[in-house]
Amino acid sequence: MFPIKNIKLATINCGLKYKNRDDLLLVELPEGSVVAGVFTKSSMAAAPVKLCQENLKQKRARGLIVNAGNANAFTGVGGEAAAKRVCEQVAKIVNSDLSQIFMSSTGVIGERLKDELIVAALPDLSKKLSDSEDAWTNSAKAIMTTDTFAKSATRKFVMKGQEIIINGFAKGSGMIAPNMATMLGYIFTNANICSDLLQKTLSELNEETFNSITVDSDTSTNDTVLLFSTREENFDKIRDPNDEDFILFKSSLKSLMQELAKMVVVDGEGATKIIEVEVKNAKSNAAAKIIGLSIANSPLVKTAIAGSDPNWGRIVMAIGKSEQEAIQNKIDISIGDFPIVRAGELVAGYDEKPVHEYLKGKEVKILVDINLGTGISKVWTCDFTEGYIKINKDYRS
Amino acid sequence: MFPIKNIKLATINCGLKYKNRDDLLLVELPEGSVVAGVFTKSSMAAAPVKLCQENLKQKRARGLIVNAGNANAFTGVGGEAAAKRVCEQVAKIVNSDLSQIFMSSTGVIGERLKDELIVAALPDLSKKLSDSEDAWTNSAKAIMTTDTFAKSATRKFVMKGQEIIINGFAKGSGMIAPNMATMLGYIFTNANICSDLLQKTLSELNEETFNSITVDSDTSTNDTVLLFSTREENFDKIRDPNDEDFILFKSSLKSLMQELAKMVVVDGEGATKIIEVEVKNAKSNAAAKIIGLSIANSPLVKTAIAGSDPNWGRIVMAIGKSEQEAIQNKIDISIGDFPIVRAGELVAGYDEKPVHEYLKGKEVKILVDINLGTGISKVWTCDFTEGYIKINKDYRS
Repeated sequence: MFPIKNIKLATINCGLKYKNRDDLLLVELPEGSVVAGVFTKSSMAAAPVKLCQENLKQKRARGLIVNAGNANAFTGVGGEAAAKRVCEQVAKIVNSDLSQIFMSSTGVIGERLKDELIVAALPDLSKKLSDSEDAWTNSAKAIMTTDTFAKSATRKFVMKGQEIIINGFAKGSGMIAPNMATMLGYIFTNANICSDLLQKTLSELNEETFNSITVDSDTSTNDTVLLFSTREENFDKIRDPNDEDFILFKSSLKSLMQELAKMVVVDGEGATKIIEVEVKNAKSNAAAKIIGLSIANSPLVKTAIAGSDPNWGRIVMAIGKSEQEAIQNKIDISIGDFPIVRAGELVAGYDEKPVHEYLKGKEVKILVDINLGTGISKVWTCDFTEGYIKINKDYRS
Repeated sequence: MFPIKNIKLATINCGLKYKNRDDLLLVELPEGSVVAGVFTKSSMAAAPVKLCQENLKQKRARGLIVNAGNANAFTGVGGEAAAKRVCEQVAKIVNSDLSQIFMSSTGVIGERLKDELIVAALPDLSKKLSDSEDAWTNSAKAIMTTDTFAKSATRKFVMKGQEIIINGFAKGSGMIAPNMATMLGYIFTNANICSDLLQKTLSELNEETFNSITVDSDTSTNDTVLLFSTREENFDKIRDPNDEDFILFKSSLKSLMQELAKMVVVDGEGATKIIEVEVKNAKSNAAAKIIGLSIANSPLVKTAIAGSDPNWGRIVMAIGKSEQEAIQNKIDISIGDFPIVRAGELVAGYDEKPVHEYLKGKEVKILVDINLGTGISKVWTCDFTEGYIKINKDYRS
């Protein structure tokens, strides 16, 4: 990631859960920064999610604090008070109002957040604030839980004669399902986009990226994606979604979000492969996405692919259980470039051996054509292995 | 199972898939027998399911043929013709019309059913037809696929001075989710119940039994439960659902269906434990069932229980993602007899050690009280282990 003028970051170990790594991230944003956000749809949303949702109404941001190891979810009014106490201290550090501070927590659900550990670490943490490349790299690491690698992406391009940067980092590897899963994502830019357009754009792109991935069909209480803009580049603020430069910004942002989303799937707990499921010509885009997710969430499809088994009957099963309109003798199914089913029947002379070989690769594509309408969708998931079970049986031990 | 007068059964190996075991079952029912049925809701329903649905309209049954090893699903018009060819031969054997023959197939999806192997085996099979106890026992075995044990149950009681028997056998261990999963179930009785009441009763009880179990959230293309009555006991046909004797019959049938359903869960692929999830006081019974299944289908809940980990935060997560009304500070959660959460907060002095010990047992109960309405539901599932992955990675190899 490239430094962005006037964004400062710092990480530290505050002792919440981990011993030999940083588990607390602080970001300071310059005066005038705006923010857009999307959150879990869980009815059990965690305390920091509620705090962000409340503060997002003002669309202004000066600070972000993220802790790993404790989700501060299902912690009642005590949890909400703990989040507020932390944010009050952060507000003092960045010299802003509480309403401009955003917080995320990730980790075990239902355990009291020891906010006193966070508060105690803040003075040292604030002294480390830096706009260096290292500070960006360390930030992506500090928010990890069961992730096996840090996830970051960056884009740099010229817009209206100004150099624009978009940096993003994310975490997530299990409890990953639409919507967003235990996924935290933070994206920062210097592009001067009006806050309403920023929110509209994030919500739209989120559907095609972070909301189109699934690891295990479980949705977290803490999912949060925040997009901050310092608006430091002093060309006129972009308000028009059809502005040519905005279209460039949007496509750059989408590719960055997709890159991060795919990293989450690649790092799916126990995953050995990334699977792309493309559904075409369903009754609607929504129907295509439901069918795609039915396939991508099927334990039987995912275990078959773990075993490189071209058991396409399980894809049929998953289409059938999706409760979306589909007619057997219209369906086409391909795995990679191999046609398997055409008009509801196995293709003549189908040879499963090359498909079996193809499935041994790290990237698997499944294409389903419903041939009933014009709805399309692409979703991503990973295979389902003994590793997932092992990680999640032993999570807290 | 006890013999039922004039029901004859036979099994044989016809070579469809298995080498050293019977894989084909034939049942002959006496003239005048009636039948009720419930089936998969998959839009990709297999050929034999469609055949049963068609024949069920007449509510009369004389024969049942079941093969294991091939599902005859997603096999197009060829698959439908194959099922019909088999049933035509069965009709000749039992000397009835084609419309009184029922068929089920279970096994791999999308491969042509070699009906010629079944037809070739029918003459020898028909010679073996017998009303012995052994014939019943062998029938429960012949329909198995990945099942590790045969599943049967029986009830005998006196109704209006007549001895009534209900025998049932079932198969299923994976691709088990509402509705019914790769579950085949066959129930036989001599009780003289009118066919409309029989169908109404089966549909109702199915919701609380076979449609309340889940192994892996995957729903099969072939699920079928058929309930046959020979109506041989010549007291007056029961038509009144409030008839005192009918209530006895219904409660016996329900307990038999629940016994079979739980056996399917106990035999869930890779399962080491049976988990009962009871949801109380949701907004409606339907909401309670959706919340219960959200918990019972959560890979994270099921892996935690596999590891005897009282990770109740994952139960909270599953309630949250169910999209049903729930308010955090009203929720109570217990595991076994241990209260964990009361009014949305961890109980004071909660000690996780005895809960961890409890979870090492073979039977686990989870109770969730939503405290918002009067809706109740009980669902059953199993834990999620490396064994499930192993079985399903290697299924066809």
